[in-house]
Amino acid sequence: MKNLFLKMTVSALLLWPDVAGAQVRHEIHVPDLAGYQVLKCDFHMHTVFSDGTVWPTVRVEEAYREGLDAIALTEHVENRRHAEDIQAHHGRSWEIAQKSAKAYDILLIRGSEITRSMAPGHFNAIFLEDCNPLDQKEWKDSFSEAKKQGAFLFWNHPGWARQQPDTTLWWDEHTFIYDKGWMQGIEVANSSSYFPEAHRWCLEKKLTMMGNSDVHPPIGMVIDFAKGEHRTMTFVLAKERTLDGIREALDNRRTIVWIDDLLIGEETYLKELFEKSVEVVKVNRKDDRCSIVLQNHSDLTFHLKKTEHDKGIEYFRTFTIEPQSRHTIGVRYSTRPVDGRIHFEVTNLLVQPDKGLDYDYSF
Amino acid sequence: MKNLFLKMTVSALLLWPDVAGAQVRHEIHVPDLAGYQVLKCDFHMHTVFSDGTVWPTVRVEEAYREGLDAIALTEHVENRRHAEDIQAHHGRSWEIAQKSAKAYDILLIRGSEITRSMAPGHFNAIFLEDCNPLDQKEWKDSFSEAKKQGAFLFWNHPGWARQQPDTTLWWDEHTFIYDKGWMQGIEVANSSSYFPEAHRWCLEKKLTMMGNSDVHPPIGMVIDFAKGEHRTMTFVLAKERTLDGIREALDNRRTIVWIDDLLIGEETYLKELFEKSVEVVKVNRKDDRCSIVLQNHSDLTFHLKKTEHDKGIEYFRTFTIEPQSRHTIGVRYSTRPVDGRIHFEVTNLLVQPDKGLDYDYSF
Amino acid sequence: MKNLFLKMTVSALLLWPDVAGAQVRHEIHVPDLAGYQVLKCDFHMHTVFSDGTVWPTVRVEEAYREGLDAIALTEHVENRRHAEDIQAHHGRSWEIAQKSAKAYDILLIRGSEITRSMAPGHFNAIFLEDCNPLDQKEWKDSFSEAKKQGAFLFWNHPGWARQQPDTTLWWDEHTFIYDKGWMQGIEVANSSSYFPEAHRWCLEKKLTMMGNSDVHPPIGMVIDFAKGEHRTMTFVLAKERTLDGIREALDNRRTIVWIDDLLIGEETYLKELFEKSVEVVKVNRKDDRCSIVLQNHSDLTFHLKKTEHDKGIEYFRTFTIEPQSRHTIGVRYSTRPVDGRIHFEVTNLLVQPDKGLDYDYSF
Amino acid sequence: MKNLFLKMTVSALLLWPDVAGAQVRHEIHVPDLAGYQVLKCDFHMHTVFSDGTVWPTVRVEEAYREGLDAIALTEHVENRRHAEDIQAHHGRSWEIAQKSAKAYDILLIRGSEITRSMAPGHFNAIFLEDCNPLDQKEWKDSFSEAKKQGAFLFWNHPGWARQQPDTTLWWDEHTFIYDKGWMQGIEVANSSSYFPEAHRWCLEKKLTMMGNSDVHPPIGMVIDFAKGEHRTMTFVLAKERTLDGIREALDNRRTIVWIDDLLIGEETYLKELFEKSVEVVKVNRKDDRCSIVLQNHSDLTFHLKKTEHDKGIEYFRTFTIEPQSRHTIGVRYSTRPVDGRIHFEVTNLLVQPDKGLDYDYSF
Repeated sequence: MKNLFLKMTVSALLLWPDVAGAQVRHEIHVPDLAGYQVLKCDFHMHTVFSDGTVWPTVRVEEAYREGLDAIALTEHVENRRHAEDIQAHHGRSWEIAQKSAKAYDILLIRGSEITRSMAPGHFNAIFLEDCNPLDQKEWKDSFSEAKKQGAFLFWNHPGWARQQPDTTLWWDEHTFIYDKGWMQGIEVANSSSYFPEAHRWCLEKKLTMMGNSDVHPPIGMVIDFAKGEHRTMTFVLAKERTLDGIREALDNRRTIVWIDDLLIGEETYLKELFEKSVEVVKVNRKDDRCSIVLQNHSDLTFHLKKTEHDKGIEYFRTFTIEPQSRHTIGVRYSTRPVDGRIHFEVTNLLVQPDKGLDYDYSF
Repeated sequence: MKNLFLKMTVSALLLWPDVAGAQVRHEIHVPDLAGYQVLKCDFHMHTVFSDGTVWPTVRVEEAYREGLDAIALTEHVENRRHAEDIQAHHGRSWEIAQKSAKAYDILLIRGSEITRSMAPGHFNAIFLEDCNPLDQKEWKDSFSEAKKQGAFLFWNHPGWARQQPDTTLWWDEHTFIYDKGWMQGIEVANSSSYFPEAHRWCLEKKLTMMGNSDVHPPIGMVIDFAKGEHRTMTFVLAKERTLDGIREALDNRRTIVWIDDLLIGEETYLKELFEKSVEVVKVNRKDDRCSIVLQNHSDLTFHLKKTEHDKGIEYFRTFTIEPQSRHTIGVRYSTRPVDGRIHFEVTNLLVQPDKGLDYDYSF
Repeated sequence: MKNLFLKMTVSALLLWPDVAGAQVRHEIHVPDLAGYQVLKCDFHMHTVFSDGTVWPTVRVEEAYREGLDAIALTEHVENRRHAEDIQAHHGRSWEIAQKSAKAYDILLIRGSEITRSMAPGHFNAIFLEDCNPLDQKEWKDSFSEAKKQGAFLFWNHPGWARQQPDTTLWWDEHTFIYDKGWMQGIEVANSSSYFPEAHRWCLEKKLTMMGNSDVHPPIGMVIDFAKGEHRTMTFVLAKERTLDGIREALDNRRTIVWIDDLLIGEETYLKELFEKSVEVVKVNRKDDRCSIVLQNHSDLTFHLKKTEHDKGIEYFRTFTIEPQSRHTIGVRYSTRPVDGRIHFEVTNLLVQPDKGLDYDYSF
Repeated sequence: MKNLFLKMTVSALLLWPDVAGAQVRHEIHVPDLAGYQVLKCDFHMHTVFSDGTVWPTVRVEEAYREGLDAIALTEHVENRRHAEDIQAHHGRSWEIAQKSAKAYDILLIRGSEITRSMAPGHFNAIFLEDCNPLDQKEWKDSFSEAKKQGAFLFWNHPGWARQQPDTTLWWDEHTFIYDKGWMQGIEVANSSSYFPEAHRWCLEKKLTMMGNSDVHPPIGMVIDFAKGEHRTMTFVLAKERTLDGIREALDNRRTIVWIDDLLIGEETYLKELFEKSVEVVKVNRKDDRCSIVLQNHSDLTFHLKKTEHDKGIEYFRTFTIEPQSRHTIGVRYSTRPVDGRIHFEVTNLLVQPDKGLDYDYSF
């Protein structure tokens, strides 16, 4: 078993792939917003270099397939589940994935997960130059080292049942971290969980809203793409499709979190997102009714729910606008109303914790 | 049971839909060719007005969902399977579907299927002004009436086992029809069958190649879209997306037939289709090998098979380029060849009956 | 256009299908309950003979594909949207589908939908002998005629926004109908809507809970089977797989309604359903933790939510048991509890309006 | 970075999963044959411990999901692509996966791939007790060590273009190996390739036919399950579902290889497989035609092609029997034939290289 490297030189010849696997990319169609490109990003994931079960290159290929623009590999600093078999420094997975990222044109961000018991729990540091200095006995030293490198730091899964069994709390340690300037964002969504408390904290404390997959196994084992599922991710409203572009947007809190059908972000962005995605193609007006034909040009779903309205008008209780689809909304009235207007909430565009976007449309 | 019409006025109120069904459109991505738009068309299908099992509007909604531009409803003139329950004139299904076609922006072509035993078998007449004159005792009279209206006529499923049990034959009647100018095209593909004989006849006799679904039930019962299947259809290279645009293209034989992975048409169009679909993104050259990175921008698949080549070069036996995908082709050589060139056949781009497109690529 | 029937005899030869379409059946796996077979039934749907858009045989083929045991075709008596083209008596769709039902071994129930404005709204009468006597000017006469034939009658979509725009109300007419014995059940679920008020009424008034698709177009246009969706249906706990078996079960209120992931029914049945579906395969006990391995043998999903529990024990906040799957539930404790027990609500097994099944498990 | 193991003890608490991922098993339905159970096995795959990209436990979870009974992890002895980061002995991946295999009830076979240039190319040794002795300079020594342990040895992908660029050849080395008793089987199919030459060699030399996935990445990246695809595998006709049961069956050549729709094996097994899978449910005889209703109870597809037949009878040219489906075959004749019989080849049941099973059916 010695001389493994020598053998590798020989055997590379034996194993050079006859046919490299096909990677089929599925773009995610979302309109530009406020003059920015909308980049699809996932800032939290693992490989065999911490407690994940895939080789780092797999994360790049998955990102390419799913139409992502950027990912961060964020191995646990303090947890190396496979350490008996894998010895490497903390930034090793990023190094390995880098070549593949270039080949697939995926922006690859160097990161680490500072992994502590509550408080403060788990934090991601991204845009690191070197992951290794974060390996410290005291968590404060880890944070300090990350900050020295100018990292962007955010609190992961603040409502994780394992660390916050009953309620999602903000601890003294978080005040300390926040005051130090060591927390720029929070995961409002992680994997399949949305945390309304974190949503509120981001609004109150001007923190960047993050949504990430935190994926450990091959992603196809947890996300069923054939069923239209997608990983939890962050839409970043960037001036340019570069690492710098992403960083600038994160620093200025220009993000929207996408988890299941939910979209979480600033009201002004969500409103524009709705208006640019859903076009009113045609309105057919009759004496006692009217039909509004819509075209959804995006890959997003919108759930509408009737709110306070003129009692002389009758329309849907709830209505779902499917991705890339054409719909007809029917409105009825006894006499043509002077001010024809339907009112509804887009319940999955969260402008506040568990509160959708109010909207009305004149027909 | 009298006064049904009077009741309908009343009950329309009762049944006005709360929420109209969503129709999600999936575009088919194919590059423009030779300066023409590539319209996706299906010129052969049935409804309850002949022996199909759906209402005519369903055909429009299906077309919208599948990304089609144009369809023809072609009810059998001589066969009205549901005649005990449905009485209507021959162009009735077109009338019913017309409103829906406008709503979904589908071009709707009026047609009929002249349905006779072999010879001459079944023919479609499309671009009719009135279907009813085709209802004649003698098939020649049907053809003559169609031609009077300036219809485009083509022979359907010439190799249908039911009418040509052993071999696919050209009968005297077809010579008669051809000489009369009553046959402008032939179905080279119908439903799941490709007819190489018809392919040859089209090339020899300068006839337009057609490919159609001939669908009778709801299309989801015969095509499994989740598996990536598509209906057999005709790509029409048109100057404009109008009925006239389609007719002009058919008259000038600018079509490509798409059945399963097969694409059947003029070599010049198929070559351009391949070159515009598959981009060489990058070539990495080393002393003893080279890798060619490809991006397929289309929704089409391409199957490559190695042909006669320089023996000093080693590459795939076969290679499949998947839709919307990125691939890497590896080439190996002992010494850098003066004339680096791989030769292959794109086996599913049929330029002749059962013969693919020959191609080579210099690296 | 005369002599259509004569033509049919001839043309049947021309059209006799070369290859009949494949119909692939997907069984729905649900355990037997309380000694009864669980039949999968849909008692509400339409064809071109009222305002649907498919031929009656399509409904049978769809039922076969989806693993159903029984369906009722329930055309609107008062609404014949396609009456201009289709003239037939009210039981005609049942007659047409009967042959196909025998071929696919689907139990076919003759029914009609009495279609009136609110109140009383729409009612289905099933197990009719003749649909035609229900065609009456006054709705009471329709009900009376149905009852004369021994029909089973139930109220359809009681919360349909079109007829109950703001709230789901019980009208005086429903009291009248109920007192007369003309209402044996209510649709607790119709298409994609669940009606908690109807759920409550069924419990209070001892009415049979029904869940039906009310499908109008080809079902593949509204249900995306590739995404794991299913039509809303009624599980009938029957002594035998016959029409009589179904009727006896309906008369004795032995049903469970299945809509999306929700299952609505008597607590005793739902509890048995959970226990027979989900097997505890293994329990691994350690000093400070325990893992419980589960196997779900059914095609149903179960959503668990932690309820009041011993504070020394720590486990999931929520947990989803997927169909046909193996899961591990982890429980942690500081010291091995004397009475190890986790408490949770199965939130999608509705034993009361919007109230799940309470359950606990000793480990 | 020291003290990683100490950290692991701590951090295990931090990472103990809130909710373990669901693994949904899809059984593969195939009838028992010749009194044996049909076990679904894959004897060739890789992990990060050679040149794969997943952790060994992933292979077990994949196997569970896909309905497999047994797998062998067969890391390359001579190629350890990730050796810079992963140092371990040759049987390490088996050790790691063992616990997971027990949890999911997957039979886990210890193996290694002897990885040499042609000749002799690559061979798998399975049922090893210790992989490490196979790490030898000379390939003969590797084979000899494997044989000492009583391993079962088979030749992998004999037609791999990388090693056999033009034709699939049997080399002198293979004669040597065969004569030594070091070759008990050959991969007739590997990944997406079928090798007819290997099929012939197995028949001539009484070798066991093997079919394996040889998967390297997460399997969902190469097999699209939503499209109904499956990995290439070996059906093993075993007396019992144990490692010994599998070994006994392999030693006695009781296997069928499944690749795409192809099934490759002894004619007697394939014939029984067809007859037990496809039941004739009903035959409807008329004066001039007959329809045969079939039910396919298996998850396999069968492709039929008409062969030499009585000219007075007319039936399909080709016919596909889909998995788990009901079909109707139509037969027509002018006068009721004395000896009604249709003849066809089941083209995807390969009893010889590229030659299907001949069959006839009397109606």
